[in-house]
Amino acid sequence: MRPALRAAAPLALALFFAGSADAASETRIPARALEQAAQLRERALADDTGWKITESLTTEVGPRLAGSEADARAVEWAKAKFRELGFDKVWTEPVTFPKWERRSESAAVLGPHAQPLAITALGGSPGGTVEGEVVRFADLAALEAAAEGSLAGRIAFVDYQMPASRDGSGYGKGSAVRSRGPSAAIRKGATGFLMRSAGTDNHRVPHTGITRYDAGLTPVPSAALSIPDADQLARLAARGPVKVRLAIDAGWDGEYTSQNVIGEMTGRSKPKEVVLIGGHLDSWDLGTGAIDDAAGIGITMAAAKLIAQMPRRPARSIRVVAFANEEQGLHGGKAYAAAHAADAARHQLAAESDFGAGRIYAFNTGAPEHARAATQKIAEALAPLGIEYAPGKGGAGPDIGPLSAKGTTWAWLAQDGSDYFDLHHTADDTLDKIDPAALAQNVAAYAVFAYLAAEAEGDFGSTVKAETKAP
Amino acid sequence: MRPALRAAAPLALALFFAGSADAASETRIPARALEQAAQLRERALADDTGWKITESLTTEVGPRLAGSEADARAVEWAKAKFRELGFDKVWTEPVTFPKWERRSESAAVLGPHAQPLAITALGGSPGGTVEGEVVRFADLAALEAAAEGSLAGRIAFVDYQMPASRDGSGYGKGSAVRSRGPSAAIRKGATGFLMRSAGTDNHRVPHTGITRYDAGLTPVPSAALSIPDADQLARLAARGPVKVRLAIDAGWDGEYTSQNVIGEMTGRSKPKEVVLIGGHLDSWDLGTGAIDDAAGIGITMAAAKLIAQMPRRPARSIRVVAFANEEQGLHGGKAYAAAHAADAARHQLAAESDFGAGRIYAFNTGAPEHARAATQKIAEALAPLGIEYAPGKGGAGPDIGPLSAKGTTWAWLAQDGSDYFDLHHTADDTLDKIDPAALAQNVAAYAVFAYLAAEAEGDFGSTVKAETKAP
Repeated sequence: MRPALRAAAPLALALFFAGSADAASETRIPARALEQAAQLRERALADDTGWKITESLTTEVGPRLAGSEADARAVEWAKAKFRELGFDKVWTEPVTFPKWERRSESAAVLGPHAQPLAITALGGSPGGTVEGEVVRFADLAALEAAAEGSLAGRIAFVDYQMPASRDGSGYGKGSAVRSRGPSAAIRKGATGFLMRSAGTDNHRVPHTGITRYDAGLTPVPSAALSIPDADQLARLAARGPVKVRLAIDAGWDGEYTSQNVIGEMTGRSKPKEVVLIGGHLDSWDLGTGAIDDAAGIGITMAAAKLIAQMPRRPARSIRVVAFANEEQGLHGGKAYAAAHAADAARHQLAAESDFGAGRIYAFNTGAPEHARAATQKIAEALAPLGIEYAPGKGGAGPDIGPLSAKGTTWAWLAQDGSDYFDLHHTADDTLDKIDPAALAQNVAAYAVFAYLAAEAEGDFGSTVKAETKAP
Repeated sequence: MRPALRAAAPLALALFFAGSADAASETRIPARALEQAAQLRERALADDTGWKITESLTTEVGPRLAGSEADARAVEWAKAKFRELGFDKVWTEPVTFPKWERRSESAAVLGPHAQPLAITALGGSPGGTVEGEVVRFADLAALEAAAEGSLAGRIAFVDYQMPASRDGSGYGKGSAVRSRGPSAAIRKGATGFLMRSAGTDNHRVPHTGITRYDAGLTPVPSAALSIPDADQLARLAARGPVKVRLAIDAGWDGEYTSQNVIGEMTGRSKPKEVVLIGGHLDSWDLGTGAIDDAAGIGITMAAAKLIAQMPRRPARSIRVVAFANEEQGLHGGKAYAAAHAADAARHQLAAESDFGAGRIYAFNTGAPEHARAATQKIAEALAPLGIEYAPGKGGAGPDIGPLSAKGTTWAWLAQDGSDYFDLHHTADDTLDKIDPAALAQNVAAYAVFAYLAAEAEGDFGSTVKAETKAP
């Protein structure tokens, strides 16, 4: 989900590239830095700082829906944690967004097969209670192909099962049901929207996530069924007409201002140039946001801490950003990019950890040709962690996307997401799902990558892209 | 949980054994019956009747808490299903019990770490809202050892983690926390009771189950936390005092009369002698009662149906009992035993399938010496299904216990319960957790066992035990 990138594209008619000073010469990683990185890597693998941070956030703050009371506690937690870890600078930058609240939600089959259904409202759903016959569609295309008005007074049920995969590629089609399904259903006349969760588990824990309604449509209550409940509703629908009651109390309620919380370990010789790493501080409300994304916070805070404990600081600063409200539209990432657009070229590389806590298996950057050899050198330092160099692959993490669009070069540390969508956006996203050893491997990878990027002689192609709008 | 057996023991001062006619001579299984059983076994493995029945009950009735509206629908379902399957006789026998209702339940950590906790009220819990500091105990013994009055105004939290095992043996200590913990907590002054679920999963689906309060105590709201929530509460408690609010709306509300639903395939030559197999029709309300115990209903109904489809009926009748309200105290099993006490000896063997839908791995009966060879012959017919003869092991299934106490010999078909307590009494007990091939193996085992028991020449030692009460 990259609304910022999608929105920006049609506006950009011309792009100016303001290359940084060293852009022309080959970027290199000093041999001494590679030696230091090897020691850092081994130290990180034996260190539990990442785990302790992740445990602290998920336990002491718990669920932290953007705009909720816990959002403010999370901000305070992050500031205190950065200070406790010895970051040289700690500050916040405001992020303002509309506030959505979930108050209650339930659904039930009515009639001769009466029984409750485990659902969760999609983020952005309005409240309301609707009853109607369920019309099942195998996927989003089937719903979109339904006759106009054919769902009048009915509840649409999109029963698409997304597949599991290491790289999460199945989520594209799964999340499209969530983002586009409600509007498609409304256009056909539906009074409510149900979907099989965009998930890969078989537990009674439905997967939430943001949805949006197209302009001009009147939103209807929209929810996801757990996978077993989708199975059940499909079986019932196959037996004959099924009536369901869907009752949601939720909705948008004004604006809220949260904070991107930022900690920096100051660089030795080029302190104004930064390597940016981070995760997002907010979570959905159903679980404690362990894999999404306390792990990302823990991994990146710990990586910076371990770098700061080295005998000598790297040349550039290591900046860790705990982004606000990623879940409801990359608000933190957009705010950061807007505030730092002019500094896009001073961000050497930027990477967000936001795909769980599975082991990292691949690495790449979006650097141009003059920094490909340096990228490969970093990959070689990561190889003992079971990480392969994957030229031509990857991209910017969610909250890095907007900054990348401003000119900063992304780095990509690909996590194994084979079980990520078992847990993503569910009540089951809790600390026990994280393997401490895999988390330490992530910390080691982020530490090595960030350290070497901060020690590199030369740049990775970050620029300031100036967009010219259409007249 | 065998309250009937426990209660009966101290009353029995003298026992009379009225042996059946053939008790003295060696029981044998005719060779022709063994040949037929081999064909039956292969037919059952390729048959999906058991699956279809299990699917029908879990889908069309869904959750069926004893005494609920769905209890009555389940009874109607069972009568109709027996008829549809061609049972020769279908009847019901009343089962009356106190009715417990669950209306709502929630819990939350209060204060600086405020967050919701996933709980479920224990069956039998009263309603009420309590707030108090949590006092954690590692196990039931630790709670029982607490100083009198030490929990005044507080909420007891017993954090015992039961282990997983194939035979379910870890459940003894796990379920003791549920049955005895609340009363122990009340004795120490607690205003509420929380326990780590008696379960082996790591999902946000707490495990319910019946509890009882000792006479003379005033019951307090009592609930189980999901395993991840117990982890979380333990972590919070380790950080300092934690206050929790526990709010339950539930309670006992009069009596309800449900039915044991019974179907019989009439025997060829000794129709009044029966082999009894069955499962329980009720379930807890959180899931759809798939492994507990729609599977038992499906397995035993299908086994009888497959036997009835053989070229020639066995000598004795095959009786399938869908027991009412097992979950809240073996009410169906006790009612059946009370109604059929005088016929205990005419029940050749009795077996209940109530430990999920995992493959059967062992077989035995409680038969005396003169029928051990016949038991072994049946075991040999089961061996191709991967089932071993386990002399000296096993016992009566829950609802068979009361009848066994009246004199009927039990048979034991041991199911692999390695994952049973991942699902038991949770919202996750749904159809998708059942492996159709494993279910068919169960059907084959029950069919072979029941057929051979019904064809045996001679008996398995069932008698009528007459109890004489103390003066």
